[in-house]
Amino acid sequence: MPYRSLTWHGATDGYLQLLDQTRLPGETVYRDCVTIEQTWQAIKQLCVRGAPAIGVSAAYGVILGVRAHREPTLDQVKQATNHLRTSRPTAVNLFWALDRMDQVAERYFVQQPGRALLDHLLAEAQAIEAEDVDTCRRIGEYGASLIPDGGGVLTHCNTGALATADFGTALAAIIFAWNQGKRFRVYADETRPLLQGARLTAWELQQHSIPCTLICDNMAAQVMKEGKVQTAIVGADRIAANGDTANKIGTYGVAVLARYHQIPFYVAAPESTFDLSLPDGRDIPIEERAAEEITQGFGKRTAPVGMEVYNPAFDVTPASLIQGIVTEHGVISPVSTESIGKMLGASRSR
Amino acid sequence: MPYRSLTWHGATDGYLQLLDQTRLPGETVYRDCVTIEQTWQAIKQLCVRGAPAIGVSAAYGVILGVRAHREPTLDQVKQATNHLRTSRPTAVNLFWALDRMDQVAERYFVQQPGRALLDHLLAEAQAIEAEDVDTCRRIGEYGASLIPDGGGVLTHCNTGALATADFGTALAAIIFAWNQGKRFRVYADETRPLLQGARLTAWELQQHSIPCTLICDNMAAQVMKEGKVQTAIVGADRIAANGDTANKIGTYGVAVLARYHQIPFYVAAPESTFDLSLPDGRDIPIEERAAEEITQGFGKRTAPVGMEVYNPAFDVTPASLIQGIVTEHGVISPVSTESIGKMLGASRSR
Repeated sequence: MPYRSLTWHGATDGYLQLLDQTRLPGETVYRDCVTIEQTWQAIKQLCVRGAPAIGVSAAYGVILGVRAHREPTLDQVKQATNHLRTSRPTAVNLFWALDRMDQVAERYFVQQPGRALLDHLLAEAQAIEAEDVDTCRRIGEYGASLIPDGGGVLTHCNTGALATADFGTALAAIIFAWNQGKRFRVYADETRPLLQGARLTAWELQQHSIPCTLICDNMAAQVMKEGKVQTAIVGADRIAANGDTANKIGTYGVAVLARYHQIPFYVAAPESTFDLSLPDGRDIPIEERAAEEITQGFGKRTAPVGMEVYNPAFDVTPASLIQGIVTEHGVISPVSTESIGKMLGASRSR
Repeated sequence: MPYRSLTWHGATDGYLQLLDQTRLPGETVYRDCVTIEQTWQAIKQLCVRGAPAIGVSAAYGVILGVRAHREPTLDQVKQATNHLRTSRPTAVNLFWALDRMDQVAERYFVQQPGRALLDHLLAEAQAIEAEDVDTCRRIGEYGASLIPDGGGVLTHCNTGALATADFGTALAAIIFAWNQGKRFRVYADETRPLLQGARLTAWELQQHSIPCTLICDNMAAQVMKEGKVQTAIVGADRIAANGDTANKIGTYGVAVLARYHQIPFYVAAPESTFDLSLPDGRDIPIEERAAEEITQGFGKRTAPVGMEVYNPAFDVTPASLIQGIVTEHGVISPVSTESIGKMLGASRSR
């Protein structure tokens, strides 16, 4: 079954269709966004999630916001992008995509004010989407070389086509390696509290007929100890200049466990996930989400009423635990401010 | 609210009452066992769980099995104990308690065959229960000295009064320390797949008004990194002669993370949890449980149909990661075959 996390239908009077990821794997339901508010809610509620997919969705959301005004002004574009910026704080692709939308508005507003701007905004959102597809394809190709033939690969959360415009990041590497003929088993952490591993990664691998064993997050150490895992690869929500990487909560633990078991730990993410304004991971904002995600995960209360809960949605893995970062420009390894600057600088001068 | 994991009501024609832990924290429901089969099912289905509580419950279960025979024979006692041995494979306290019941039967059968044997079996089960209460009290006292005043303590699964005849093991240490006036916060891993931390540990700490923050298992690394945890303490289901410790799945990961963050990691367990017939942890049998515990854990399917699952209920933490083992005889530290032999040998010669 072919599937897309997001599709823009029509011209500037069209709409954004999202595969509602909160309903997977039980139901394949699409959710149509015709207003910016619906898009904001869809991002906030994780109907669409995954750093690259959030960025693309937000870009389309700008159009839905701006078109509500008869003669859109630059301020109204800023209003739209600023509102969408508040939907989720950690994934930097969101801010990166919205910055691009702002820049397009600024570039074209003087020459073509009013509704003509919408065409430029739509073209930019479509460019961001198309670039993400291309970027993910290249990440999949570079990343595939890191996946060993035989043995097992552990991954955390979901980094497949559902997390991007298409293909994915870490999961793209896994799927491309499989399609090259490499044979292995994927160990998918279920990824509490929202079970993106169980619900989404397991589902995507099933669509590709790739052998996958679902485990609870606390079993990762055990499968490593049993020698079942030769490589760990995950995605990212924001990477600082030195390579410190914010990703789904639990990633840091996987990285520590991988180091202890001498298993290489890789991150796969597009250039848009890098935030070179931050020298290291200390200042990456970490979203804390509602306690109910933990205490009432699936419609049933699993902790006493009144229990205090800590629910950080992300953690930061220090660069020292990361063997390499797979980008659309190649694999950065070893990971350092210098090697990252060199790879991204070279790409920018191309 | 006072609570007991298990209570035997009446004489040899009585019954075993269990607090049904599968219904906590939502409901406080008791389940009465009047047959050995009901006891076997209650253990299998984790209505009663925790290595010491399983041992005591099984001892009472023997009486329920033997009394079904008009003139019980030694063979029928063996039949009962052998059946109960099949309920769960990892916790050695089960086998230890059933061995004691066998020995009592052998000791008294010649002099007092038939139904008189039931009195001896009941006395032995009650002795096992009373000893467990006393043992746990002493573990609580020794263990309390390891809990720092200020900061945080991380624990995994449930090791409180619910896991034993009373007081608990690792949780007893925490509760005793609190009652001594030490102040700290407990970080309770929710403990997937069956959420004993969220459902039971959080509930027990709430009964004692001890500050507790519930986290998902994959957040343990993060709270350690944030400096919120100064000590980790867990229980055990079987400890080999060298100190390698089988405990609830996820324990090994916590131990690795604690080592990485230079946080002392302790195990608390009675002498009955040691299996000195095993030189190390390699031969400890690890129970694998049903895939549905992971895929339908919350009463709702959270993984695609047909997904392969690995669900080991326990893992083995090597002695080298354990700072000390708290027993009713004192704290064994450093942990080695010699130090364990010395502590347990000394206790046996007392």
